[in-house]
Amino acid sequence: MAIGTLVLLRHGESVWNAQNLFTGWVDVPLSEKGVAEATRGGALLVEAGILPDVVHTSLQRRAITTANLALDAADRHWIPVKRDWRLNERHYGALQGKNKKQTLAEFGEEQFMLWRRSYDTPPPPIEKGSEFSQDADPRYAALGGAAPLTECLKDVVARLVPYWEAEIVPDLRAGRTVLVAAHGNSLRALVKNLEGISDEAIAGLNIPTGIPLRYDLDDDLTPITRGGTYLDPDAAADAIAAVANQGR
Amino acid sequence: MAIGTLVLLRHGESVWNAQNLFTGWVDVPLSEKGVAEATRGGALLVEAGILPDVVHTSLQRRAITTANLALDAADRHWIPVKRDWRLNERHYGALQGKNKKQTLAEFGEEQFMLWRRSYDTPPPPIEKGSEFSQDADPRYAALGGAAPLTECLKDVVARLVPYWEAEIVPDLRAGRTVLVAAHGNSLRALVKNLEGISDEAIAGLNIPTGIPLRYDLDDDLTPITRGGTYLDPDAAADAIAAVANQGR
Repeated sequence: MAIGTLVLLRHGESVWNAQNLFTGWVDVPLSEKGVAEATRGGALLVEAGILPDVVHTSLQRRAITTANLALDAADRHWIPVKRDWRLNERHYGALQGKNKKQTLAEFGEEQFMLWRRSYDTPPPPIEKGSEFSQDADPRYAALGGAAPLTECLKDVVARLVPYWEAEIVPDLRAGRTVLVAAHGNSLRALVKNLEGISDEAIAGLNIPTGIPLRYDLDDDLTPITRGGTYLDPDAAADAIAAVANQGR
Repeated sequence: MAIGTLVLLRHGESVWNAQNLFTGWVDVPLSEKGVAEATRGGALLVEAGILPDVVHTSLQRRAITTANLALDAADRHWIPVKRDWRLNERHYGALQGKNKKQTLAEFGEEQFMLWRRSYDTPPPPIEKGSEFSQDADPRYAALGGAAPLTECLKDVVARLVPYWEAEIVPDLRAGRTVLVAAHGNSLRALVKNLEGISDEAIAGLNIPTGIPLRYDLDDDLTPITRGGTYLDPDAAADAIAAVANQGR
């Protein structure tokens, strides 16, 4: 059987994206703009004739709502749903809840970019019991001590790849069109693994919000078109430039 | 392990409920009132301290949206989701898309009530290819010839009980709080089976929209309180009276 189609969708703007705060595992909702982006993401699926057979989401509201709205707009609200913490955004440690611009001013460009874009340097861990920690969150209770208190992108790759192999790849090998509704860094981790991008080069990859990214794969699960295909390439190019300027 | 808690939630008002049309398997969205009902259903869960661990829905938008909105309001948007056509509303056959009041006038009280409330008399089957049939609907493609063209409540019981036993009971036996977001007649079928209500007496049971109905069960899955407990009993009593007067 032919390998199915993979479609990645980064959630629309959240209320904290709009306020330029580090979010990580804090479960903030979409902004009004994010709601519109999610719905437009669904319309782009329809225009492209892409009909997801199954959706995978993180455990976070902004990705879940994005999936719900996009699938509703695409008349695919009824497909099976799988959710897992391994698709969550990178845990931003002690930076969660902090303003990006203030953090840049406080710690300087070098440290700021190291936390944001280095592959293997996590921010300091979040303190247990702090306002923006998740240690009392029931959705992570089953993880116990394995729940992260901070993550670098390398950590995200390490927890995401087992989910990719165990849950997403079987759906693709069954010929399904698979929608993954997730986050900037969990999708960067997925694409790094999928495309074999180096630890250094991944720093330059930004994935825009709300624009489905389509991958057709060969039998080895290698993308047929490197970089995939955004369903709205012009909007994607503009948004990629804007993401790169966050915190400036 | 103790048996978990069962919570039934009938979807909020749909745009066709508001227009007094027979809906069945036609996939209409919630009305504005229905959206508010669903969100309030979630608030009632929070007030009662009921935290669903898993949700089961039909394949129909009005139940899916109700579950999404209620769980979002209850901060349980992240729980596992299972969907199945066996939780769908009763297929209303050739009546789908028809006005209830006009149908009453056209066919008379006796025939009308037989179609609406008899246990084993289905309406005439819907014609294939008609405006309100589902024969081209991809979500039912896997059912093939087994997809119903009309149903009486007995048919709904027959297709629902296997799902109850295979999918819902194991969740309850695992001690989970199980939310079932479904429809007037699929929930009547579930309650009939759960409470051992006779084929005659089930005609008198109406389940109001948007008000969670809680069942605590003993080891034999028998309700500890007959009839369960509505989380807003006064609103439920008012709504039950209103449902009984539909089509008048």
